Amino acid sequence: MSTILQQLEKVLDERKRADAASSYVASLHAKGLETILKKVGEEATETVIAAVSGDREQVVYETADLWFHIMVMLSHLDISHDEVLAELERRFGLSGLEEKAQRKG
Amino acid sequence: MSTILQQLEKVLDERKRADAASSYVASLHAKGLETILKKVGEEATETVIAAVSGDREQVVYETADLWFHIMVMLSHLDISHDEVLAELERRFGLSGLEEKAQRKG
Amino acid sequence: MSTILQQLEKVLDERKRADAASSYVASLHAKGLETILKKVGEEATETVIAAVSGDREQVVYETADLWFHIMVMLSHLDISHDEVLAELERRFGLSGLEEKAQRKG
Amino acid sequence: MSTILQQLEKVLDERKRADAASSYVASLHAKGLETILKKVGEEATETVIAAVSGDREQVVYETADLWFHIMVMLSHLDISHDEVLAELERRFGLSGLEEKAQRKG
Repeated sequence: MSTILQQLEKVLDERKRADAASSYVASLHAKGLETILKKVGEEATETVIAAVSGDREQVVYETADLWFHIMVMLSHLDISHDEVLAELERRFGLSGLEEKAQRKG
Repeated sequence: MSTILQQLEKVLDERKRADAASSYVASLHAKGLETILKKVGEEATETVIAAVSGDREQVVYETADLWFHIMVMLSHLDISHDEVLAELERRFGLSGLEEKAQRKG
Repeated sequence: MSTILQQLEKVLDERKRADAASSYVASLHAKGLETILKKVGEEATETVIAAVSGDREQVVYETADLWFHIMVMLSHLDISHDEVLAELERRFGLSGLEEKAQRKG
Repeated sequence: MSTILQQLEKVLDERKRADAASSYVASLHAKGLETILKKVGEEATETVIAAVSGDREQVVYETADLWFHIMVMLSHLDISHDEVLAELERRFGLSGLEEKAQRKG
């Protein structure tokens, strides 16, 4: 399924250079990092609301929105989602997810 | 790379049934949905702070933290991350990501 | 200065019953609690961004926006801001703000 | 009632110079702006959760927590809450709250 994230990243990088008038993604990049981050904050709130409301379908929808805007943020900063996945792998490849428990004390 | 998310989901589902005293993930589930959602909100804020600060390494680190807690939330609600990826695929498989621009427009 | 918050509360309660087409506040109430909460989440993110950016004037502006939407939320839930102030007073009237340190400790 | 916010501001400014080991407020300042902002983000999320859950008492409690940490943030940046109140007054003193509707419109 990772092909979806890789495909998404590829599409997002293409849209980055598109005309802001015709592409939502290009318009986000044109408005700049702060606008993208506001969307991340907004979509995180919407995900939380959907989860508390117990609306399963809405959780999937809002999480996709949140994930999408995180990918746009990474694209804006020229960071591949592979680096984030590698960080996740590192954490539980080294000492397992329990490393987090130790870190957080 | 998707194997990382699939592996993570598998590990998270196992930890869900572990002893809360020995596993950070199990302790999150034991504390319940609201605690998990607070972590999602907190990690989203930390990601935003890292991005504004321009600390590339920190962005990768905090995004991994955010992604991790989103996965725990999905696991708590018995939602596979595959459903979120399928939603993302559906959006740009059907009419491309521009569908979003139209919807939000 | 509290008169400002009291005046604001009074105005917000009046606007609650206004025509949604002519009043931003009325339109928020018409859209419902979730829309108001999304604004709270969004304005909190904007406040954080302004603070990290070190833009003093923008912090004042965004904090006012956040405060405003918190007041709209309270109004929507028929909660007076006086109850929130009373809770703050109770906390440091009883045992001082250190009560918090103990609670969180 | 504004005396409460003025009193709170005064207490917060005193605690700013207190020993971090004995004061929650001083410990926040010692940890720095990012820690304070994470708390703002976290408490905003908790307020949203309480509101969606329909727990009136919890909304008052979490809003007080959010307000408290906003006041700590302002104190850290040497901004008086009076400036935020003045901004709110300016907005609806000039052209009323509808100014916002026009601005966002």
